[in-house]
Amino acid sequence: MSDLDVRPAGPGGPDADADRLARVTLSCAVEPGDGTTSSLVQQVGAVRALEQSLTSRSDTGVAERLAERLAAVEPERELDQAARCGIRFLVPGDPEWPPGLDRLDDTITDDGFGGTPPGLWVRGPMSLRELDCSVAVVGSRAASFYGVEMTRAVCADLAHAGVPVVSGGALGIDFVAHDSTLAAAGTTVAVLACGVDRVYPAQNRRLLQHLAAHLAVLSEQPPGSTPTRPRFLARNRLIAAMTTGTVLVEAALRSGALNTAGWAEGLGRQVMCVPGPATSATSQGVNHFLREGRGTVVTSGREVLELVGRSGEHLLDPPRGETRPRDDLTPTERQVVEWVPVSRPALVDAISVQCGLHVRTTDGALRRLRAKGLVRLDEEGWRLAPDA
Amino acid sequence: MSDLDVRPAGPGGPDADADRLARVTLSCAVEPGDGTTSSLVQQVGAVRALEQSLTSRSDTGVAERLAERLAAVEPERELDQAARCGIRFLVPGDPEWPPGLDRLDDTITDDGFGGTPPGLWVRGPMSLRELDCSVAVVGSRAASFYGVEMTRAVCADLAHAGVPVVSGGALGIDFVAHDSTLAAAGTTVAVLACGVDRVYPAQNRRLLQHLAAHLAVLSEQPPGSTPTRPRFLARNRLIAAMTTGTVLVEAALRSGALNTAGWAEGLGRQVMCVPGPATSATSQGVNHFLREGRGTVVTSGREVLELVGRSGEHLLDPPRGETRPRDDLTPTERQVVEWVPVSRPALVDAISVQCGLHVRTTDGALRRLRAKGLVRLDEEGWRLAPDA
Repeated sequence: MSDLDVRPAGPGGPDADADRLARVTLSCAVEPGDGTTSSLVQQVGAVRALEQSLTSRSDTGVAERLAERLAAVEPERELDQAARCGIRFLVPGDPEWPPGLDRLDDTITDDGFGGTPPGLWVRGPMSLRELDCSVAVVGSRAASFYGVEMTRAVCADLAHAGVPVVSGGALGIDFVAHDSTLAAAGTTVAVLACGVDRVYPAQNRRLLQHLAAHLAVLSEQPPGSTPTRPRFLARNRLIAAMTTGTVLVEAALRSGALNTAGWAEGLGRQVMCVPGPATSATSQGVNHFLREGRGTVVTSGREVLELVGRSGEHLLDPPRGETRPRDDLTPTERQVVEWVPVSRPALVDAISVQCGLHVRTTDGALRRLRAKGLVRLDEEGWRLAPDA
Repeated sequence: MSDLDVRPAGPGGPDADADRLARVTLSCAVEPGDGTTSSLVQQVGAVRALEQSLTSRSDTGVAERLAERLAAVEPERELDQAARCGIRFLVPGDPEWPPGLDRLDDTITDDGFGGTPPGLWVRGPMSLRELDCSVAVVGSRAASFYGVEMTRAVCADLAHAGVPVVSGGALGIDFVAHDSTLAAAGTTVAVLACGVDRVYPAQNRRLLQHLAAHLAVLSEQPPGSTPTRPRFLARNRLIAAMTTGTVLVEAALRSGALNTAGWAEGLGRQVMCVPGPATSATSQGVNHFLREGRGTVVTSGREVLELVGRSGEHLLDPPRGETRPRDDLTPTERQVVEWVPVSRPALVDAISVQCGLHVRTTDGALRRLRAKGLVRLDEEGWRLAPDA
């Protein structure tokens, strides 16, 4: 076998089939986020990575246990069973494969966590190609009213702009992100830490069933898998990698949503943080993230769109605040009005000396300013109108 | 007269007297923030700057009007009158002169605004040397309950740490900054846009009289001056320059407090922003400032102290969030607990295969975890306890 044969096979042909089956086996036996196996797949391809893993030995017995699990997988049977439940298995190179996932091989942590998953299990009619420019919206399970309100506002704007929303299908902000995107007739998918045939948490049954029936739920875990804490952490990297940017709406100091934001940052994606009251526990994690100089503040969906849009798209004018009466003055009027005292009145001569203009010019400007309601004249002299 | 004679005179002696009188005259006739005159004073000294300004001519008549105003000042009389009201006039080189003000000559704006003031009028018994490590706390006049609450919390912490609070004596956040510092037995001074003998706004009469009687109010404007908009903007630069850092508590999009923050930034001072709800108009300016990548998020007075303290002072531990049951596990227990499923139960063999540990080791760890309340065992197997 030449070196050329070990590269991941393209679509079609027996090489591609072997690659796909090897990836099913790896997906069923290797825990998500096993960066060592991901690196091996990247180096020698899935088929040879599987062969090596089946015969690998280690002092700790970890390699033997992985080999045991790998040997027990019957990949054709897994694919058949999945297909009968309307679940498809995507591998790199498939047209639907989210290209952002390939970046994950560059961000394996020092303790070997991360990497591109061997494949992706998808349930639902939506093509993942629709996620090419999508945004992750994540946050605390224990959401506050403020967090819910901000999530609704951001997701409605994203839906109206046709930008799909990716989230984790959890309680709290995740649920509201999916729900409010659907309410605004937008596109949204859930990336799960368990198999796509399972419902977790049970409270979100109707939402997850709706997504599976009409849009998509996805997971790197094979059908039937249960959620565990490391699987939630591994899942977070997929959400960050598949999307153009991650919006962190609310997060307490140890929220898992901060982990998603950290992955997005490591991948060079936009991390967009909704600041919140310093007095709110569910904003402490977000505010602390910003305090470390990480992420960009966003306060509306339009600001999110500006950051994730293609160059020149969705540009916002700088926020201006309310319009004020003195916005529309001529330069002379502006110069004069600046020197009309706020409290006690002044005569035109004094104002003229202060603003450095001739008395006649000053007087004319003051009269026009009075017509515009900015200054008042009484027997003691000129003074500013209360709302000038 | 040699070149050496034109430098600003040191304290004492006839040169010093001439310098002080020239500065009184400039202070009484030149508008605050006149960067052209400041630059001239910096280059040739106050005495010669005054001489040149008295004879200067311009096409627009501006120079002639300034000369008129300068010629009308009687500096000895101004000083006498001020002294009778308990007001002193400080010049650069005086022991009380805030050294930070000298930095202002480096930050004159493109349109000639800014510069070091010729002098400072001070009313009150407190020595300005106490302001050497002080913090400005500024914000909207239209403060929200949240802004008031945060101002009180920050100022109480500063007061307890012995850090003086500088603010502008205005309504809203300024008032609360002074008031809550006094309530916590701290030190606070107000920098005014009018003369230190005047009360503006009238609602703050009791506060300003208290500061003048027991601490200090200061202004670059001579006694009797009325506040105008440019004088407020000019005053802001003094607040920024005199302090180690500026805390921006609340600011609407066009708040003057943003102007103070901008001066602090330009002077290389710490700008510390209290983030607020995106839904609050009085936090929009702060959040937008942060969105531009300016300023550092602060959510408590202790975080302010950490940023303005001398190296190693007031250091905070990273915020940790609440302690959780699994914080105190051994490495083996932690490895095992990660693989106990959240929803449906698993048998010890399955968990052992997943976590890569021997069945006996896994079983022992599970039993210790049960004793710690993290996992439960029933007839179907092991599962995570609800709050693990």
